[in-house]
Amino acid sequence: MDKRKSFVAVHAGAGYHSTSKETEYRSVCKDACKQAMEILRNEGTSLAAVTKAVSVLEDSPLTNAGLGSNLTQDGIVECDASVMDGLTLTSGAVGCITDVQNPVLVAKQLVQKQVQGGLSLGRIPPSILVGPGARQWAEEQGITLTAEGGLVTESSRRTYLKYKRKLDHQTALMEKRQTADDTVHKKMKTGKDDLECGESSGVQDTVGCVCVDGDGNMAAACSSGGIWMKHRGRMGPAAHYGVGSWAHNGCCDGKPGVAVVSSGGGEHLIKTFLAKTCADSVQKEPNASLAVSSTFKDNFLESEFLSGVEDKHGGVLVLKHLMEDDGFREAEVLWAHTTDSMCIGYMLETHSKPTTFVSRLPESSLPGKSFAMEGRILNFDQSS
Amino acid sequence: MDKRKSFVAVHAGAGYHSTSKETEYRSVCKDACKQAMEILRNEGTSLAAVTKAVSVLEDSPLTNAGLGSNLTQDGIVECDASVMDGLTLTSGAVGCITDVQNPVLVAKQLVQKQVQGGLSLGRIPPSILVGPGARQWAEEQGITLTAEGGLVTESSRRTYLKYKRKLDHQTALMEKRQTADDTVHKKMKTGKDDLECGESSGVQDTVGCVCVDGDGNMAAACSSGGIWMKHRGRMGPAAHYGVGSWAHNGCCDGKPGVAVVSSGGGEHLIKTFLAKTCADSVQKEPNASLAVSSTFKDNFLESEFLSGVEDKHGGVLVLKHLMEDDGFREAEVLWAHTTDSMCIGYMLETHSKPTTFVSRLPESSLPGKSFAMEGRILNFDQSS
Repeated sequence: MDKRKSFVAVHAGAGYHSTSKETEYRSVCKDACKQAMEILRNEGTSLAAVTKAVSVLEDSPLTNAGLGSNLTQDGIVECDASVMDGLTLTSGAVGCITDVQNPVLVAKQLVQKQVQGGLSLGRIPPSILVGPGARQWAEEQGITLTAEGGLVTESSRRTYLKYKRKLDHQTALMEKRQTADDTVHKKMKTGKDDLECGESSGVQDTVGCVCVDGDGNMAAACSSGGIWMKHRGRMGPAAHYGVGSWAHNGCCDGKPGVAVVSSGGGEHLIKTFLAKTCADSVQKEPNASLAVSSTFKDNFLESEFLSGVEDKHGGVLVLKHLMEDDGFREAEVLWAHTTDSMCIGYMLETHSKPTTFVSRLPESSLPGKSFAMEGRILNFDQSS
Repeated sequence: MDKRKSFVAVHAGAGYHSTSKETEYRSVCKDACKQAMEILRNEGTSLAAVTKAVSVLEDSPLTNAGLGSNLTQDGIVECDASVMDGLTLTSGAVGCITDVQNPVLVAKQLVQKQVQGGLSLGRIPPSILVGPGARQWAEEQGITLTAEGGLVTESSRRTYLKYKRKLDHQTALMEKRQTADDTVHKKMKTGKDDLECGESSGVQDTVGCVCVDGDGNMAAACSSGGIWMKHRGRMGPAAHYGVGSWAHNGCCDGKPGVAVVSSGGGEHLIKTFLAKTCADSVQKEPNASLAVSSTFKDNFLESEFLSGVEDKHGGVLVLKHLMEDDGFREAEVLWAHTTDSMCIGYMLETHSKPTTFVSRLPESSLPGKSFAMEGRILNFDQSS
């Protein structure tokens, strides 16, 4: 255990972050990093740290996770979350869970129950629970539930009503013109006045955290309320194995450890297994920047699984970590996104405070069609 | 379109099939093949054919899918199903859906809605729906619902009550001895008197179908009621993207088309993305038997994601298809399983009737520790 070499990075969603709220977004990321680092400084595991960071992000009404999540078409909050532990290669996830304060805690508990082992009568512990059964299980495990609708905020309710009016209006128009003009119908389907971008209040998706602890163990966690006005029961990328979060400690044969979380247009992330694809690439290609950029180009923007999709919105936060037999350790953190922006925070144990910023696509780039990528080599011995 | 070159293969679950019921299992597989072939002969697509075959398997009370599915701990049926279309590389899935006669039809409808394209307000059509929202969506789409509890049969209810008594008894014993003896506790957790094998009535898991149609398009579909006495909300492999079903038409650059369905111990299939891993391997390695056997050895039985797991129960049904520019076509069907048995059926358009049989592990092999594999090269021009 060398807790001085622990590191945590978080993001508050790949999407659109208005400059007017930039300070608030950064402040949430800062808080999440600090609380996760507190755990690492007390010799907690990376699993505990990522879960803590994501709970902090969930508790902020500003993010699209936990409290203040986007509402479904019928006005409720259904959350997705997952956690992956790189030491045991165990993942836990919840999909479309309602009225649980911190969905990520349920995902963590699912990891822990799987690591503990088999159930009676030879049953295998579940890796993913969805819907009412997930909430019921959480309650049995003593995890805090909210009152019904307890994750809806005044602001999310207001935005919901605004979108609801738009949706009802468009539906009425579409029904009216359905038989008359297919072109109108088509235009409305792909209209720019949509829920994915352009809202001044800011639209984000899945939040997440990657971490390496003092023992060199990797973990990743993510959480999301899903897209605005989704159909009830629509399970997003944050709950999909291999999509929202991935962590792998690496091996003695020089394969680096890696932790990745993804965010963005759900079904596009799912179709490309974005977190796992990125992690696999980082473990194969020695140059981490090349690994991440080639994943974004070949396996996302030009993926055969997304052919015909005009705009591909996605982002990743990646942590690569190498630990040699003599204890020498080096690490690198990278972020890449095709979305307008992504709010990032990170902190080394040796740092007195987290670094936070909003990464933005260059003005010349079109969201959904090109990506921005950046990274930092982590110097475990340097204070700040 | 050369409908004479269409082919369909089904399986009624990798698990344990008693010899006394062998004729019944084979009869269901036969019926599923025939009904799917009827669609292919009428120039239907592989997508329509796999869905039809799996609906037939679901409608049989003998299989663990649709009617007669395994019950959850609290006595209800929750189904998982998925469909993948190899032409558009689109997958649709439902998880923990209740009271829908044919879950696979909902999955197929999700594929079709995605292929149709975007929703109003820029929303992306969902690829997976779970829980009550999935049933609600099915109803909106005009898919047949059952009465509440309509998928429970007299036989499944009886088996449930038997397991429930066992479970209640073990829980009571465990609670009693919890403080006294950890060894007892541990023994009970891994006891041989479990739900996964050894029941004389036969235990199966996910059923599935792979197909190539007259146009050379591939598709795969699967459906499952999940393991006996699962917790409500436990989503199994049949609903997981990349796990239960996978289909890919292949490319002009000589990459073969492939369709794979998997079955067995859910969480083990999930952790290893069994269907996709197998399909990727078949598309890379020219020798299909070698591709499937190396997947079973390296990526399942010896997978780092299943380290510490004593018995690994899984099976796959694989279809490989090569179509050259001049219309020359060749295909191969393979099945492999570490489970005691797997009931298989297949049919070429040129055949007058399906071939069905139960594939069994050799007596010298231990279920969960070694696998049996077999296959047939398909001769599209030979009648039977």
